[in-house]
Amino acid sequence: MADMIAKKQEILESLEFRHATKEFDQDKKISESDFRYILEAARLSPSSLGIEPWKFIVVQNSRLRERLKEVAWGAQGQLPTASHFVLILARTIKDTKYDSDYIAHQMKEVKKVPEEVHQGMLVRYRSFQEEDFHLFDNERAILDWAGKQTYIALTNMMTAAALIGIDSCPIEGFDMDAVNKILEEEGLLENGRLSMSVMAAFGYRVKEPRPKARRQLDDIVQWVE
Amino acid sequence: MADMIAKKQEILESLEFRHATKEFDQDKKISESDFRYILEAARLSPSSLGIEPWKFIVVQNSRLRERLKEVAWGAQGQLPTASHFVLILARTIKDTKYDSDYIAHQMKEVKKVPEEVHQGMLVRYRSFQEEDFHLFDNERAILDWAGKQTYIALTNMMTAAALIGIDSCPIEGFDMDAVNKILEEEGLLENGRLSMSVMAAFGYRVKEPRPKARRQLDDIVQWVE
Repeated sequence: MADMIAKKQEILESLEFRHATKEFDQDKKISESDFRYILEAARLSPSSLGIEPWKFIVVQNSRLRERLKEVAWGAQGQLPTASHFVLILARTIKDTKYDSDYIAHQMKEVKKVPEEVHQGMLVRYRSFQEEDFHLFDNERAILDWAGKQTYIALTNMMTAAALIGIDSCPIEGFDMDAVNKILEEEGLLENGRLSMSVMAAFGYRVKEPRPKARRQLDDIVQWVE
Repeated sequence: MADMIAKKQEILESLEFRHATKEFDQDKKISESDFRYILEAARLSPSSLGIEPWKFIVVQNSRLRERLKEVAWGAQGQLPTASHFVLILARTIKDTKYDSDYIAHQMKEVKKVPEEVHQGMLVRYRSFQEEDFHLFDNERAILDWAGKQTYIALTNMMTAAALIGIDSCPIEGFDMDAVNKILEEEGLLENGRLSMSVMAAFGYRVKEPRPKARRQLDDIVQWVE
Protein backbone atom coordinates (compact mmCIF):
# COMPACT_ATOMS: atom_id res chain seq x y z
CA MET A 1 0.00 0.00 0.00
CA ALA A 2 2.76 2.44 0.98
CA ASP A 3 4.63 1.13 -2.07
CA MET A 4 1.73 1.97 -4.36
CA ILE A 5 1.38 5.48 -2.96
CA ALA A 6 5.10 6.03 -3.54
CA LYS A 7 4.81 4.65 -7.06
CA LYS A 8 1.93 6.94 -8.01
CA GLN A 9 3.86 9.85 -6.54
CA GLU A 10 6.91 8.95 -8.59
CA ILE A 11 4.89 8.79 -11.81
CA LEU A 12 3.15 12.12 -11.17
CA GLU A 13 6.54 13.64 -10.41
CA SER A 14 7.75 12.41 -13.81
CA LEU A 15 4.79 14.16 -15.45
CA GLU A 16 5.70 17.30 -13.48
CA PHE A 17 9.36 16.87 -14.48
CA ARG A 18 8.42 16.82 -18.16
CA HIS A 19 8.30 20.30 -19.64
CA ALA A 20 8.67 21.71 -23.13
CA THR A 21 12.45 21.84 -23.13
CA LYS A 22 13.61 24.67 -25.37
CA GLU A 23 17.34 23.92 -25.26
CA PHE A 24 19.26 20.75 -24.53
CA ASP A 25 22.74 20.08 -23.16
CA GLN A 26 24.84 19.41 -26.25
CA ASP A 27 27.36 17.44 -24.25
CA LYS A 28 24.83 14.86 -23.07
CA LYS A 29 23.60 12.32 -25.55
CA ILE A 30 20.86 9.78 -24.93
CA SER A 31 22.32 6.27 -24.95
CA GLU A 32 21.37 3.94 -27.75
CA SER A 33 19.49 1.62 -25.40
CA ASP A 34 17.58 4.47 -23.77
CA PHE A 35 16.52 5.86 -27.13
CA ARG A 36 15.50 2.43 -28.29
CA TYR A 37 13.34 2.20 -25.17
CA ILE A 38 11.66 5.52 -26.15
CA LEU A 39 10.98 4.18 -29.65
CA GLU A 40 9.55 1.01 -28.13
CA ALA A 41 7.12 3.16 -26.15
CA ALA A 42 5.95 4.58 -29.49
CA ARG A 43 5.76 1.17 -31.10
CA LEU A 44 3.64 -0.32 -28.32
CA SER A 45 1.15 2.56 -28.45
CA PRO A 46 -2.46 1.87 -29.36
CA SER A 47 -4.16 3.40 -32.39
CA SER A 48 -7.68 3.47 -33.76
CA LEU A 49 -8.58 0.21 -35.53
CA GLY A 50 -5.08 -0.91 -34.58
CA ILE A 51 -3.62 0.40 -37.82
CA GLU A 52 -0.50 2.18 -36.50
CA PRO A 53 -0.87 5.03 -39.03
CA TRP A 54 2.54 6.52 -38.34
CA LYS A 55 6.24 6.72 -39.07
CA PHE A 56 9.08 8.07 -36.95
CA ILE A 57 11.94 9.78 -38.72
CA VAL A 58 14.93 10.33 -36.46
CA VAL A 59 16.82 13.31 -37.84
CA GLN A 60 20.45 13.16 -36.73
CA ASN A 61 21.78 14.63 -39.95
CA SER A 62 22.88 18.24 -39.37
CA ARG A 63 22.17 19.37 -42.92
CA LEU A 64 18.52 18.24 -42.66
CA ARG A 65 18.25 19.75 -39.19
CA GLU A 66 19.45 23.06 -40.67
CA ARG A 67 16.87 22.89 -43.44
CA LEU A 68 14.09 22.23 -40.93
CA LYS A 69 15.32 25.06 -38.71
CA GLU A 70 14.55 27.54 -41.49
CA VAL A 71 10.86 26.69 -41.41
CA ALA A 72 10.31 25.70 -37.77
CA TRP A 73 10.11 28.76 -35.53
CA GLY A 74 9.22 26.58 -32.55
CA ALA A 75 12.33 24.41 -32.87
CA GLN A 76 15.05 27.04 -33.02
CA GLY A 77 16.66 25.98 -29.76
CA GLN A 78 15.85 22.30 -30.05
CA LEU A 79 17.02 21.46 -33.58
CA PRO A 80 20.66 22.44 -32.95
CA THR A 81 20.89 20.93 -29.45
CA ALA A 82 18.63 17.88 -29.15
CA SER A 83 20.34 14.56 -28.68
CA HIS A 84 17.63 13.00 -30.85
CA PHE A 85 15.15 14.86 -33.03
CA VAL A 86 12.09 12.99 -34.29
CA LEU A 87 9.60 13.85 -37.01
CA ILE A 88 6.37 11.99 -36.41
CA LEU A 89 4.49 11.48 -39.66
CA ALA A 90 0.90 10.41 -40.17
CA ARG A 91 -0.24 8.06 -42.92
CA THR A 92 -2.45 9.63 -45.57
CA ILE A 93 -5.76 8.47 -47.01
CA LYS A 94 -3.84 6.20 -49.39
CA ASP A 95 -3.01 4.03 -46.39
CA THR A 96 -5.77 4.82 -43.92
CA LYS A 97 -8.95 4.44 -45.95
CA TYR A 98 -10.79 1.29 -44.88
CA ASP A 99 -10.17 -0.53 -48.17
CA SER A 100 -6.47 0.35 -48.52
CA ASP A 101 -3.76 -2.21 -49.16
CA TYR A 102 -2.03 -0.93 -46.05
CA ILE A 103 -4.95 -1.81 -43.78
CA ALA A 104 -5.38 -5.17 -45.49
CA HIS A 105 -1.69 -5.90 -44.82
CA GLN A 106 -2.02 -4.71 -41.23
CA MET A 107 -4.97 -7.01 -40.62
CA LYS A 108 -3.63 -10.06 -42.42
CA GLU A 109 0.10 -9.92 -41.78
CA VAL A 110 0.50 -7.96 -38.55
CA LYS A 111 -2.68 -8.80 -36.61
CA LYS A 112 -3.13 -12.23 -38.26
CA VAL A 113 -6.89 -11.71 -38.53
CA PRO A 114 -8.60 -14.59 -40.39
CA GLU A 115 -9.94 -13.66 -43.84
CA GLU A 116 -13.64 -14.01 -42.95
CA VAL A 117 -13.22 -11.83 -39.84
CA HIS A 118 -11.30 -9.30 -41.93
CA GLN A 119 -14.20 -8.91 -44.35
CA GLY A 120 -16.61 -8.18 -41.52
CA MET A 121 -14.22 -5.67 -40.05
CA LEU A 122 -14.01 -3.81 -43.35
CA VAL A 123 -17.77 -3.28 -43.34
CA ARG A 124 -17.49 -1.84 -39.85
CA TYR A 125 -14.46 0.28 -40.73
CA ARG A 126 -16.26 1.79 -43.69
CA SER A 127 -19.28 2.82 -41.66
CA PHE A 128 -17.03 4.09 -38.88
CA GLN A 129 -14.91 6.25 -41.18
CA GLU A 130 -17.74 7.41 -43.42
CA GLU A 131 -20.79 7.68 -41.17
CA ASP A 132 -19.64 7.84 -37.55
CA PHE A 133 -16.61 10.10 -37.88
CA HIS A 134 -17.27 11.68 -41.33
CA LEU A 135 -13.62 11.24 -42.26
CA PHE A 136 -14.24 11.78 -45.97
CA ASP A 137 -15.86 15.20 -45.45
CA ASN A 138 -12.81 17.00 -46.72
CA GLU A 139 -9.22 16.27 -47.63
CA ARG A 140 -7.68 16.85 -44.26
CA ALA A 141 -10.26 15.12 -42.05
CA ILE A 142 -8.85 11.61 -42.41
CA LEU A 143 -5.29 12.93 -42.17
CA ASP A 144 -6.15 14.72 -38.92
CA TRP A 145 -7.68 11.48 -37.68
CA ALA A 146 -4.40 9.65 -38.33
CA GLY A 147 -2.67 12.64 -36.77
CA LYS A 148 -4.62 12.13 -33.55
CA GLN A 149 -3.22 8.61 -33.34
CA THR A 150 0.32 9.94 -33.75
CA TYR A 151 -0.24 12.07 -30.64
CA ILE A 152 -0.76 8.86 -28.68
CA ALA A 153 2.68 7.65 -29.73
CA LEU A 154 4.15 11.13 -29.15
CA THR A 155 2.80 11.14 -25.60
CA ASN A 156 4.07 7.69 -24.72
CA MET A 157 7.52 8.66 -26.01
CA MET A 158 7.61 11.80 -23.86
CA THR A 159 6.21 10.09 -20.78
CA ALA A 160 8.47 7.05 -21.10
CA ALA A 161 11.40 9.45 -21.44
CA ALA A 162 10.37 11.49 -18.39
CA LEU A 163 10.02 8.33 -16.32
CA ILE A 164 13.75 7.73 -16.72
CA GLY A 165 14.79 11.38 -16.44
CA ILE A 166 15.06 12.25 -20.12
CA ASP A 167 13.73 15.60 -21.32
CA SER A 168 11.66 16.25 -24.40
CA CYS A 169 9.72 18.86 -26.31
CA PRO A 170 6.65 18.36 -28.51
CA ILE A 171 6.72 20.84 -31.39
CA GLU A 172 3.92 22.15 -33.61
CA GLY A 173 5.74 25.43 -34.28
CA PHE A 174 6.52 24.99 -37.94
CA ASP A 175 5.22 25.81 -41.39
CA MET A 176 3.38 22.59 -42.27
CA ASP A 177 3.56 23.02 -46.06
CA ALA A 178 7.23 23.97 -46.01
CA VAL A 179 8.18 20.96 -43.88
CA ASN A 180 6.22 18.61 -46.13
CA LYS A 181 7.98 20.13 -49.13
CA ILE A 182 11.39 19.50 -47.58
CA LEU A 183 10.45 15.93 -46.68
CA GLU A 184 9.15 15.35 -50.18
CA GLU A 185 12.43 16.63 -51.64
CA GLU A 186 14.37 14.37 -49.27
CA GLY A 187 12.32 11.42 -50.46
CA LEU A 188 10.85 10.71 -47.04
CA LEU A 189 7.11 10.75 -47.75
CA GLU A 190 6.74 7.31 -49.34
CA ASN A 191 5.14 8.74 -52.50
CA GLY A 192 2.42 10.64 -50.71
CA ARG A 193 1.61 7.94 -48.18
CA LEU A 194 3.02 10.02 -45.33
CA SER A 195 2.49 13.60 -44.21
CA MET A 196 4.03 15.65 -41.41
CA SER A 197 2.21 15.52 -38.09
CA VAL A 198 4.28 16.69 -35.12
CA MET A 199 7.92 16.97 -34.04
CA ALA A 200 9.52 15.75 -30.83
CA ALA A 201 12.96 16.62 -29.51
CA PHE A 202 14.74 14.55 -26.85
CA GLY A 203 17.80 15.17 -24.70
CA TYR A 204 18.82 16.63 -21.36
CA ARG A 205 17.83 20.11 -20.13
CA VAL A 206 20.41 22.86 -19.63
CA LYS A 207 18.30 24.82 -17.17
CA GLU A 208 15.39 24.30 -14.83
CA PRO A 209 11.98 25.39 -16.13
CA ARG A 210 9.44 27.60 -14.43
CA PRO A 211 6.94 25.68 -12.26
CA LYS A 212 4.18 24.03 -14.29
CA ALA A 213 0.94 26.02 -14.52
CA ARG A 214 -2.29 24.12 -15.06
CA ARG A 215 -6.00 24.60 -14.48
CA GLN A 216 -7.30 22.98 -11.33
CA LEU A 217 -8.90 19.56 -11.49
CA ASP A 218 -12.34 20.97 -10.63
CA ASP A 219 -12.06 23.21 -13.64
CA ILE A 220 -11.49 20.45 -16.18
CA VAL A 221 -13.41 17.52 -14.69
CA GLN A 222 -17.15 17.14 -14.40
CA TRP A 223 -18.81 14.16 -12.72
CA VAL A 224 -22.20 12.87 -13.82
CA GLU A 225 -23.27 10.60 -10.99
CA MET B 1 22.54 0.82 -13.97
CA ALA B 2 20.89 -2.52 -13.27
CA ASP B 3 18.14 -0.51 -11.57
CA MET B 4 17.58 1.57 -14.68
CA ILE B 5 17.39 -1.47 -16.92
CA ALA B 6 14.81 -2.98 -14.57
CA LYS B 7 12.86 0.28 -14.54
CA LYS B 8 12.72 0.53 -18.33
CA GLN B 9 11.66 -3.09 -18.47
CA GLU B 10 8.88 -2.44 -15.97
CA ILE B 11 7.57 0.53 -17.97
CA LEU B 12 7.61 -1.36 -21.27
CA GLU B 13 5.80 -4.22 -19.54
CA SER B 14 3.12 -1.75 -18.46
CA LEU B 15 2.72 -0.66 -22.09
CA GLU B 16 2.47 -4.33 -23.04
CA PHE B 17 -0.03 -4.91 -20.19
CA ARG B 18 -2.30 -2.18 -21.53
CA HIS B 19 -4.75 -3.46 -24.10
CA ALA B 20 -8.14 -2.32 -25.34
CA THR B 21 -10.15 -3.95 -22.56
CA LYS B 22 -13.59 -4.87 -23.89
CA GLU B 23 -15.15 -5.94 -20.60
CA PHE B 24 -14.31 -5.11 -16.99
CA ASP B 25 -14.82 -6.95 -13.72
CA GLN B 26 -17.95 -5.39 -12.27
CA ASP B 27 -16.95 -6.39 -8.75
CA LYS B 28 -13.71 -4.40 -8.81
CA LYS B 29 -13.91 -0.65 -8.57
CA ILE B 30 -10.99 1.73 -8.92
CA SER B 31 -10.34 3.47 -5.60
CA GLU B 32 -11.02 7.17 -5.34
CA SER B 33 -7.33 7.96 -4.86
CA ASP B 34 -6.28 5.82 -7.83
CA PHE B 35 -8.80 7.48 -10.09
CA ARG B 36 -7.77 10.89 -8.89
CA TYR B 37 -4.20 9.93 -9.83
CA ILE B 38 -5.42 9.04 -13.35
CA LEU B 39 -7.15 12.42 -13.65
CA GLU B 40 -3.98 14.12 -12.43
CA ALA B 41 -2.10 12.43 -15.28
CA ALA B 42 -4.57 14.10 -17.66
CA ARG B 43 -4.31 17.45 -15.92
CA LEU B 44 -0.51 17.50 -16.08
CA SER B 45 -0.48 16.69 -19.81
CA PRO B 46 0.99 19.20 -22.24
CA SER B 47 -1.03 20.80 -25.03
CA SER B 48 -0.26 23.05 -27.97
CA LEU B 49 0.20 26.68 -26.88
CA GLY B 50 -0.46 25.40 -23.36
CA ILE B 51 -4.19 26.01 -23.69
CA GLU B 52 -5.52 22.72 -22.24
CA PRO B 53 -8.39 22.60 -24.76
CA TRP B 54 -10.25 19.80 -23.01
CA LYS B 55 -12.78 18.64 -20.49
CA PHE B 56 -13.22 15.25 -18.84
CA ILE B 57 -16.74 14.09 -18.08
CA VAL B 58 -16.81 11.08 -15.78
CA VAL B 59 -20.03 9.24 -16.50
CA GLN B 60 -21.02 7.17 -13.48
CA ASN B 61 -24.74 7.69 -13.97
CA SER B 62 -26.32 4.49 -15.33
CA ARG B 63 -29.08 6.31 -17.22
CA LEU B 64 -26.54 8.35 -19.19
CA ARG B 65 -24.40 5.27 -19.75
CA GLU B 66 -27.48 3.54 -21.21
CA ARG B 67 -28.15 6.46 -23.53
CA LEU B 68 -24.56 6.42 -24.76
CA LYS B 69 -24.66 2.65 -25.24
CA GLU B 70 -27.36 3.09 -27.88
CA VAL B 71 -25.04 5.10 -30.11
CA ALA B 72 -21.61 3.66 -29.24
CA TRP B 73 -21.05 0.30 -30.93
CA GLY B 74 -17.47 0.22 -29.68
CA ALA B 75 -18.45 0.58 -26.03
CA GLN B 76 -21.05 -2.16 -25.69
CA GLY B 77 -19.00 -4.19 -23.22
CA GLN B 78 -17.31 -1.24 -21.53
CA LEU B 79 -20.23 1.07 -20.75
CA PRO B 80 -22.05 -1.43 -18.52
CA THR B 81 -18.93 -2.76 -16.77
CA ALA B 82 -16.29 -0.02 -16.49
CA SER B 83 -15.47 1.17 -13.01
CA HIS B 84 -15.07 4.67 -14.44
CA PHE B 85 -16.17 5.84 -17.88
CA VAL B 86 -14.78 9.11 -19.22
CA LEU B 87 -15.88 11.27 -22.12
CA ILE B 88 -13.00 13.43 -23.28
CA LEU B 89 -14.26 16.58 -24.95
CA ALA B 90 -12.34 19.07 -27.05
CA ARG B 91 -12.87 22.81 -26.90
CA THR B 92 -14.35 24.35 -30.05
CA ILE B 93 -13.24 27.38 -32.06
CA LYS B 94 -15.10 29.62 -29.58
CA ASP B 95 -12.39 28.79 -27.05
CA THR B 96 -9.43 27.82 -29.19
CA LYS B 97 -9.16 30.66 -31.71
CA TYR B 98 -6.12 32.80 -30.90
CA ASP B 99 -8.16 35.83 -29.87
CA SER B 100 -10.71 33.97 -27.70
CA ASP B 101 -11.57 34.98 -24.15
CA TYR B 102 -10.65 31.46 -23.10
CA ILE B 103 -7.07 31.78 -24.35
CA ALA B 104 -6.78 35.27 -22.84
CA HIS B 105 -7.90 33.82 -19.49
CA GLN B 106 -5.51 30.90 -19.86
CA MET B 107 -2.56 33.22 -20.52
CA LYS B 108 -3.37 35.83 -17.88
CA GLU B 109 -4.89 33.82 -15.05
CA VAL B 110 -3.48 30.33 -15.41
CA LYS B 111 -0.05 30.92 -16.95
CA LYS B 112 0.36 34.40 -15.40
CA VAL B 113 1.88 35.73 -18.61
CA PRO B 114 2.57 39.51 -18.39
CA GLU B 115 0.30 41.62 -20.62
CA GLU B 116 3.04 42.79 -23.01
CA VAL B 117 4.26 39.23 -23.53
CA HIS B 118 0.67 38.09 -24.06
CA GLN B 119 0.20 40.57 -26.92
CA GLY B 120 3.29 39.27 -28.69
CA MET B 121 2.12 35.70 -28.22
CA LEU B 122 -1.22 36.50 -29.84
CA VAL B 123 0.52 37.65 -33.00
CA ARG B 124 2.42 34.38 -33.08
CA TYR B 125 -0.68 32.32 -32.29
CA ARG B 126 -2.59 33.94 -35.14
CA SER B 127 0.10 33.19 -37.69
CA PHE B 128 0.50 29.68 -36.30
CA GLN B 129 -3.19 28.86 -36.48
CA GLU B 130 -3.88 30.66 -39.75
CA GLU B 131 -0.71 30.28 -41.81
CA ASP B 132 1.36 27.43 -40.40
CA PHE B 133 -1.39 24.91 -39.62
CA HIS B 134 -4.29 26.31 -41.73
CA LEU B 135 -6.71 25.72 -38.88
CA PHE B 136 -9.39 27.98 -40.37
CA ASP B 137 -9.53 26.04 -43.65
CA ASN B 138 -12.81 24.43 -42.72
CA GLU B 139 -15.06 24.04 -39.71
CA ARG B 140 -13.56 20.89 -38.33
CA ALA B 141 -9.86 21.68 -38.77
CA ILE B 142 -9.45 23.64 -35.54
CA LEU B 143 -11.65 21.17 -33.66
CA ASP B 144 -9.49 18.29 -34.87
CA TRP B 145 -6.44 20.26 -33.74
CA ALA B 146 -7.91 20.55 -30.22
CA GLY B 147 -8.85 16.89 -30.53
CA LYS B 148 -5.20 15.98 -31.11
CA GLN B 149 -4.34 17.58 -27.78
CA THR B 150 -7.03 15.53 -26.05
CA TYR B 151 -5.27 12.39 -27.26
CA ILE B 152 -2.22 13.47 -25.26
CA ALA B 153 -4.31 13.53 -22.10
CA LEU B 154 -6.04 10.28 -23.09
CA THR B 155 -2.68 8.58 -23.48
CA ASN B 156 -1.28 9.77 -20.18
CA MET B 157 -4.43 8.56 -18.43
CA MET B 158 -4.13 5.08 -19.97
CA THR B 159 -0.38 4.83 -19.40
CA ALA B 160 -0.57 6.11 -15.81
CA ALA B 161 -3.34 3.57 -15.19
CA ALA B 162 -1.32 0.71 -16.73
CA LEU B 163 1.70 1.62 -14.61
CA ILE B 164 -0.30 0.76 -11.49
CA GLY B 165 -2.10 -2.25 -12.98
CA ILE B 166 -5.37 -0.60 -13.99
CA ASP B 167 -6.93 -1.50 -17.33
CA SER B 168 -8.44 0.85 -19.85
CA CYS B 169 -9.93 1.13 -23.31
CA PRO B 170 -9.79 4.12 -25.67
CA ILE B 171 -12.99 4.26 -27.72
CA GLU B 172 -13.73 5.94 -31.05
CA GLY B 173 -16.50 3.47 -31.89
CA PHE B 174 -19.49 5.78 -31.67
CA ASP B 175 -21.75 7.95 -33.79
CA MET B 176 -20.15 11.36 -33.29
CA ASP B 177 -23.26 13.42 -34.10
CA ALA B 178 -25.51 11.28 -31.93
CA VAL B 179 -23.18 11.52 -28.93
CA ASN B 180 -22.91 15.28 -29.31
CA LYS B 181 -26.71 15.48 -29.49
CA ILE B 182 -27.05 13.53 -26.24
CA LEU B 183 -24.44 15.69 -24.52
CA GLU B 184 -26.16 18.82 -25.76
CA GLU B 185 -29.47 17.58 -24.37
CA GLU B 186 -27.80 16.78 -21.07
CA GLY B 187 -26.43 20.32 -20.93
CA LEU B 188 -22.81 19.19 -20.99
CA LEU B 189 -21.42 21.13 -23.96
CA GLU B 190 -21.02 24.56 -22.33
CA ASN B 191 -23.14 26.28 -24.99
CA GLY B 192 -21.15 24.98 -27.93
CA ARG B 193 -17.74 25.48 -26.37
CA LEU B 194 -17.16 21.73 -26.12
CA SER B 195 -17.51 18.88 -28.60
CA MET B 196 -17.02 15.14 -28.24
CA SER B 197 -13.53 13.85 -28.94
CA VAL B 198 -12.86 10.35 -27.59
CA MET B 199 -14.04 8.01 -24.83
CA ALA B 200 -11.97 6.13 -22.29
CA ALA B 201 -13.10 3.33 -20.00
CA PHE B 202 -11.19 2.28 -16.89
CA GLY B 203 -11.42 -0.74 -14.59
CA TYR B 204 -10.01 -4.22 -14.16
CA ARG B 205 -9.99 -6.88 -16.87
CA VAL B 206 -12.06 -10.06 -16.60
CA LYS B 207 -9.90 -12.06 -18.99
CA GLU B 208 -6.42 -12.03 -20.45
CA PRO B 209 -6.07 -10.54 -23.93
CA ARG B 210 -4.37 -12.03 -26.93
CA PRO B 211 -0.68 -11.14 -27.20
CA LYS B 212 -0.09 -7.65 -28.59
CA ALA B 213 0.63 -7.50 -32.33
CA ARG B 214 2.65 -4.59 -33.67
CA ARG B 215 4.81 -3.76 -36.67
CA GLN B 216 8.52 -4.18 -36.06
CA LEU B 217 10.61 -1.18 -35.11
CA ASP B 218 12.47 -1.25 -38.44
CA ASP B 219 9.15 -0.93 -40.19
CA ILE B 220 8.07 2.27 -38.46
CA VAL B 221 11.38 4.02 -37.78
CA GLN B 222 13.71 5.61 -40.31
CA TRP B 223 17.02 7.18 -39.37
CA VAL B 224 18.49 10.10 -41.30
CA GLU B 225 22.09 10.24 -40.16
